[in-house]
Amino acid sequence: MRLVPPHARVAFQGEPGAFSEEAAVKLLGDGVVTVPRSTFDAAFAALSRRDADALLAPIENSLAGSVLRVYDLLVESGFWIAAEIVLPIEHQLIGCPGATLGDIGSVESHPMALAQCERLIAAHPEWKRVPAEDTAGSARSVIAAADRTRAAIAGRRAAERYGGTILLSNVEDNRQNFTRFVLLLPAEGKVPGADKMSLALRLPHRPGSLLEALEPFSRHVVNMLKIESRPIHGRPWEYQFFVDVAAAEPARLEKALDALREVAQEVKVLGLYKQETKSERQETAAGVSDLSPP
Amino acid sequence: MRLVPPHARVAFQGEPGAFSEEAAVKLLGDGVVTVPRSTFDAAFAALSRRDADALLAPIENSLAGSVLRVYDLLVESGFWIAAEIVLPIEHQLIGCPGATLGDIGSVESHPMALAQCERLIAAHPEWKRVPAEDTAGSARSVIAAADRTRAAIAGRRAAERYGGTILLSNVEDNRQNFTRFVLLLPAEGKVPGADKMSLALRLPHRPGSLLEALEPFSRHVVNMLKIESRPIHGRPWEYQFFVDVAAAEPARLEKALDALREVAQEVKVLGLYKQETKSERQETAAGVSDLSPP
Repeated sequence: MRLVPPHARVAFQGEPGAFSEEAAVKLLGDGVVTVPRSTFDAAFAALSRRDADALLAPIENSLAGSVLRVYDLLVESGFWIAAEIVLPIEHQLIGCPGATLGDIGSVESHPMALAQCERLIAAHPEWKRVPAEDTAGSARSVIAAADRTRAAIAGRRAAERYGGTILLSNVEDNRQNFTRFVLLLPAEGKVPGADKMSLALRLPHRPGSLLEALEPFSRHVVNMLKIESRPIHGRPWEYQFFVDVAAAEPARLEKALDALREVAQEVKVLGLYKQETKSERQETAAGVSDLSPP
Repeated sequence: MRLVPPHARVAFQGEPGAFSEEAAVKLLGDGVVTVPRSTFDAAFAALSRRDADALLAPIENSLAGSVLRVYDLLVESGFWIAAEIVLPIEHQLIGCPGATLGDIGSVESHPMALAQCERLIAAHPEWKRVPAEDTAGSARSVIAAADRTRAAIAGRRAAERYGGTILLSNVEDNRQNFTRFVLLLPAEGKVPGADKMSLALRLPHRPGSLLEALEPFSRHVVNMLKIESRPIHGRPWEYQFFVDVAAAEPARLEKALDALREVAQEVKVLGLYKQETKSERQETAAGVSDLSPP
């Protein structure tokens, strides 16, 4: 089943060549038209205004945790999660064409990416660290300058997109660096075989309220894949919870949801989609992610 | 009661003038000797090697979520949370002495801080955005250069520390930006009046296991302040949970803990400390944080 038409316009946050763009193409095929936006807010606005047909956004990373801004925008916008894809975040040391490792005098990237490649950078005290606002953007800038002394840290797609040379591949310290991306559509839609559900709950802040909310999942043999509490701004006596659940029999999700609505103050279904399974993931990634269990 | 001696050496991640340093001084007094380290790993190592007597680390932010690297290092190190303090993250536009707003041609800071001040930056399209690795470091650099065309975004403490001029104060888009910091000591210790407990749990990945683990808290009238699941690398069938709980009667925490140990695979107490209450927080912050409820 197609989630979007083959040439759909898919918004994402970042510059062309970003990991989110890679996720969009892996999930939806080469035919999609990717629509880059500089911030998450702008990417969500692109879908609201129908400057895009869908949105591909990172929602959690195995090292950095949930992307709260995306959760907030998801709840505010009312967009619908229609699919997920997990990608390994593999960093490449990228130079301009003709550059060699010995030429390099500086390395630039987003501070998070620089921090994830400390081992490489520590081994080269002669390199100057140069922070940038974007990984793919740092590759673009280094390659456009055609300066052999400059290198960037970014994904393989950025190197290919801008015609750079990969001087060293997979330079990240931790191979267990995975990001889960979600495909968002403007409105709710049925995905055949959907076995995973994402929810935002509001519960009163008193002992036992979470217990009551979780009981229906246990009763209907629904597995909890993720739970995260978050205080609600301006409402100190209420809590919001983001929950991901999955069931071998999708009908159980509906039953648990009905029971949950009776006890929770507010239940918002963020999406109902197919869980990316371990075997699907192995096809795309050499290592096995356990960002979400099989 | 003193948590550490008045002249204790307190490690933190960042440059002098960082928000973590501000948290250390607010919590422990002006007499402490702050020990800056460039990474969280190095800050934890400083305490392990007794190059410091304590460690002050951010553990969650209201906009960005939990600081997972700090959680990981906390679990690995076996250090003990002895106190918490919540600070508002207020960004200042800082120039060198003599600079005025009209002089400014560029603004530099960590990309996260730049992103948190989008409104200001969007209102000044003539400013060049310059990413940096550190907020306080960007203030140091701008002031050291004595270049009136450069401004940095950092905290008030950084402006004071390096003798800069605050050109515009509280330039953050969202006033609800709070960070919770924890004081870590090398070993477990009793804090009189401790009413809050942080735990790391490991549970088998099956329906109902979380429910069983939460039941003792409900039974003993213990309030859950935070819960966050995290997959365990290399063990896809187990989950780790980080939980914060509080009780009006501290004895209830011990009772709930005893009952929890009977059902959870592994329970690690990360700390037992006094919850920062709303009224204490109001003394330091003009706005009221609800990062953790009162």
